[in-house]
Amino acid sequence: MSKLRVQSFAVSLDGYGAGPDQDLQNPLGVGGMELMEWFFPTRVWQNMYGDTDGETGIDNGIAELGFSGIGAWILGRNMFGPIRGPWPDLSWQGWWGDEPPYHTPVYVLTHHARAPIQMKGGTEFHFVTEGIHAALEQAKAAAGGLDVRLGGGVATLRQYLQAGLVDEMHLALRPVLLGNGENLWEGLDLRQLGYHCERYVAGERAMHVFFKRE
Amino acid sequence: MSKLRVQSFAVSLDGYGAGPDQDLQNPLGVGGMELMEWFFPTRVWQNMYGDTDGETGIDNGIAELGFSGIGAWILGRNMFGPIRGPWPDLSWQGWWGDEPPYHTPVYVLTHHARAPIQMKGGTEFHFVTEGIHAALEQAKAAAGGLDVRLGGGVATLRQYLQAGLVDEMHLALRPVLLGNGENLWEGLDLRQLGYHCERYVAGERAMHVFFKRE
Repeated sequence: MSKLRVQSFAVSLDGYGAGPDQDLQNPLGVGGMELMEWFFPTRVWQNMYGDTDGETGIDNGIAELGFSGIGAWILGRNMFGPIRGPWPDLSWQGWWGDEPPYHTPVYVLTHHARAPIQMKGGTEFHFVTEGIHAALEQAKAAAGGLDVRLGGGVATLRQYLQAGLVDEMHLALRPVLLGNGENLWEGLDLRQLGYHCERYVAGERAMHVFFKRE
Repeated sequence: MSKLRVQSFAVSLDGYGAGPDQDLQNPLGVGGMELMEWFFPTRVWQNMYGDTDGETGIDNGIAELGFSGIGAWILGRNMFGPIRGPWPDLSWQGWWGDEPPYHTPVYVLTHHARAPIQMKGGTEFHFVTEGIHAALEQAKAAAGGLDVRLGGGVATLRQYLQAGLVDEMHLALRPVLLGNGENLWEGLDLRQLGYHCERYVAGERAMHVFFKRE
């Protein structure tokens, strides 16, 4: 059965999945890019933008698994772009460049309707205004039996976790402290929601932690 | 120079250093004993209470380091016992049995004065009513040039961290979710306080994370 999976979502030791003050210069908030510094050196990431180099160790292997068997994605609006409120400029097509790294249909949660966008390399952005359940339904229908990957950000993850809709979650715990920003854990009782940690692995630049829902 | 060190302090992935509802039956709160399950199998722990067995892997090695070079301890009152308010019964001498595992002077933070207690094996409990700075001063004087170990619990750690008095901190991140209880990170901006993570190691039953203050 098709699952909803969180993969390679990076959080600091003190629980932040993004720093404060997100804007065009700081897509992950101030200091938030440190969260991704385990991913950038991997071959998976390097290949996405045309490089053929990149490291092939533990971090890379786990990052690769995160793209395997995925038929559709769900993103919170802030992972599409920094714009809040109505869309001021339809020509801007997101953070991700002409050929985003998704290569599948991507369902973007928003309160503001917008026509789908077809990008190079198979990524199609669809804008869902009917909430998290509707986005999941549409993503599962589009995934053709494969899994759906929930990309984030923090607020979106928290909503899906709170609703018990996430089947599996892999966090990349980065050995950094952010001290401030968007906290994944705050007020979220994952134990009561039926989640437990199944295993952990130390990678080169992150500790990888795998959760399942009972 | 004598340092103040936190060693082998266990926290859950969601940041709890104790579960809710601490009492005589649940010294670490409900569910909190899961935090210690990396420590109980080690030879260090087994030897403390007379067993000669116990595992000698990574977890044990790191636990051993936590006792090395320590000349005095500081504990919050709840790590001495579950009693709140004035001491009702001076014959009760703490959680730790006749021969506590400290073997040094131990400075217990409390609002209620009490005469020192001399235990078997070199542990002397001193009760400090003048606050965290006074306890640190007394512990350093007693440690004779060795380091002082800050045992916990969460509220005590948070006070010393907030005051920038902790020089080094080792956390044993347990692969469990508590969902509730006493949170180490909440509202504590360790980055701003000058702390950073220096290294991490995956042990058999915990991920070990080492922090320093710049």
